[in-house]
Amino acid sequence: MKELSALMGYRESIKVLDATLRDGGLCNDFFFTDEFVKALYKANIRAGVDYMEVGYRADKTMFDTDKFGRWKFSSDEDILSVLGDNKETGLKLSIMTDVGRCNYKEDIRNKSESPVDLIRVATYVHTIPECCAMIDYAKNKGYEVSCNIMAVSNAGEKDIRCALDMIFRTDVDCIYIVDSFGSLYPEQIQRISDVYTEYANKYGKSVGIHAHNNQQMAFANTIEAVGDGIDWIDATYLGMGRGAGNCPIENVIGFLRNPKYNIYPVIKFIEEYMEPLRAGGVKWGYDIQYLLSGLFNLHPRDAIRYSKEGRTDITNFYKEITSNDN
Amino acid sequence: MKELSALMGYRESIKVLDATLRDGGLCNDFFFTDEFVKALYKANIRAGVDYMEVGYRADKTMFDTDKFGRWKFSSDEDILSVLGDNKETGLKLSIMTDVGRCNYKEDIRNKSESPVDLIRVATYVHTIPECCAMIDYAKNKGYEVSCNIMAVSNAGEKDIRCALDMIFRTDVDCIYIVDSFGSLYPEQIQRISDVYTEYANKYGKSVGIHAHNNQQMAFANTIEAVGDGIDWIDATYLGMGRGAGNCPIENVIGFLRNPKYNIYPVIKFIEEYMEPLRAGGVKWGYDIQYLLSGLFNLHPRDAIRYSKEGRTDITNFYKEITSNDN
Repeated sequence: MKELSALMGYRESIKVLDATLRDGGLCNDFFFTDEFVKALYKANIRAGVDYMEVGYRADKTMFDTDKFGRWKFSSDEDILSVLGDNKETGLKLSIMTDVGRCNYKEDIRNKSESPVDLIRVATYVHTIPECCAMIDYAKNKGYEVSCNIMAVSNAGEKDIRCALDMIFRTDVDCIYIVDSFGSLYPEQIQRISDVYTEYANKYGKSVGIHAHNNQQMAFANTIEAVGDGIDWIDATYLGMGRGAGNCPIENVIGFLRNPKYNIYPVIKFIEEYMEPLRAGGVKWGYDIQYLLSGLFNLHPRDAIRYSKEGRTDITNFYKEITSNDN
Repeated sequence: MKELSALMGYRESIKVLDATLRDGGLCNDFFFTDEFVKALYKANIRAGVDYMEVGYRADKTMFDTDKFGRWKFSSDEDILSVLGDNKETGLKLSIMTDVGRCNYKEDIRNKSESPVDLIRVATYVHTIPECCAMIDYAKNKGYEVSCNIMAVSNAGEKDIRCALDMIFRTDVDCIYIVDSFGSLYPEQIQRISDVYTEYANKYGKSVGIHAHNNQQMAFANTIEAVGDGIDWIDATYLGMGRGAGNCPIENVIGFLRNPKYNIYPVIKFIEEYMEPLRAGGVKWGYDIQYLLSGLFNLHPRDAIRYSKEGRTDITNFYKEITSNDN
């Protein structure tokens, strides 16, 4: 039985992070209007969401700023100009920094000069030392810091244990379980949660969950993790996110019983902003090509290409991704 | 940890029932072409599916045969004319009979004169005696018989226990947990499974699961139930079914490890028949109105009407279904 098994009470320590601008930005190259971003911010405040991720802080010397909206770079100036200094709300702001794709020594200044509260460092298991250096850097600048270890379904348990021990020895606040390929079932989430919480408890830190919906498991895996003691939940409006998308925030807010959360502002934002976005042609969400890439534990890039090309020959797609010729 | 926790082995006793024609028929008033039905039948055989439900056997004196396709009535003659006598395959055929909507004493003949193998009796908790009479009748005619106790999320545990004891005292083979409103979470499925299997074990019978996808939980609840020892799984192609739809059979076949199941014929049928059906305007599947009706444990009829009317004012819908005025 899970800790939340009564389904009536709640755990104060749970935090919800809205990743719509960041993971959702992968669906429209981060071209969100200022009006959209402001309305999202207000919806999150009213809904009781704990963190709003305003995008990546990608290296402008690496990515063409003409080809992406500003939330791929999320400079302090841009955040301030659209959302203000955010000093009067209960909502905290976060950005994501990818190991190897963020010029953090130049682009992350002191917390006292930034509206950002939380810096999230995304890494694979083979770049942990650089990840730890970024965590130390951001911590020294005064931020809350979390770490996403991506593609956990492709990593061996010994590597995961080694990575957890290295990262938790920094001052990081939280490490996320990230099912990048949407290939995990709840039972696997339970086992992985046990490993993560073993290390988190040892170091007095927290664990989070970032799920993808390839097998229609994003929400199910998220509440499995919550039942297993995981406290930080990533979610997005209408599940907007790369490929099959993420765990829908409307499901999460509907599930959680803490009275600080309110679903009405969530569905209001969906009605006024998300549905028009989707009707306007921005594509994400579950479909059979994502089921297959999740089932075979593959990066969704082939499934995303299949979707973009408007293909309907799913049997050929199946044969392509299961080919053993290479 | 669940019984299937290794996720590598399999349980011989698991059976998959394709309910596409029956629950899916609720989306198009059962107007499937003969070609569709024949191709579905072949796909099920190739995929290793155990049962194919060919529709309801509704009372023709109660429903207008001009307003529905023939799979609402699924006469032995119609089944024989389209699928033949089905004596050479490993696939069994089933029909569903609703308590109070099936003229069973006239319309169910001896098994020896019918291509049907399994008769499924659908009941609410307040019509158990009539349900038991139908089970006895069908058993005496020589069929396998299962029972769906609908809307379990609205029934008290004492009523459920009483119903299980009454029904399992008949010669029924299996009783299904039916989450008609798609309102249950996996933890609740686990608790309900414990109650059902307690009675099933006492009487040496089986338990099944029929899930709806209102909260994107149909597949998650199904594999939770499998892990809890439930053996009979209802699923449909692309999750086709009333409102938010059912557990997708492609997810189930992808999840199960018994080598008798094959996903390729499933996705082939989806490519050739299901996607054109959906592209042709037949509507089903998860959307936010179904999330809300599931969240509030309501029959999906209001959400289905909202969908049919093409409404987009989800905030008004929210206020309508949460109104306390009546």
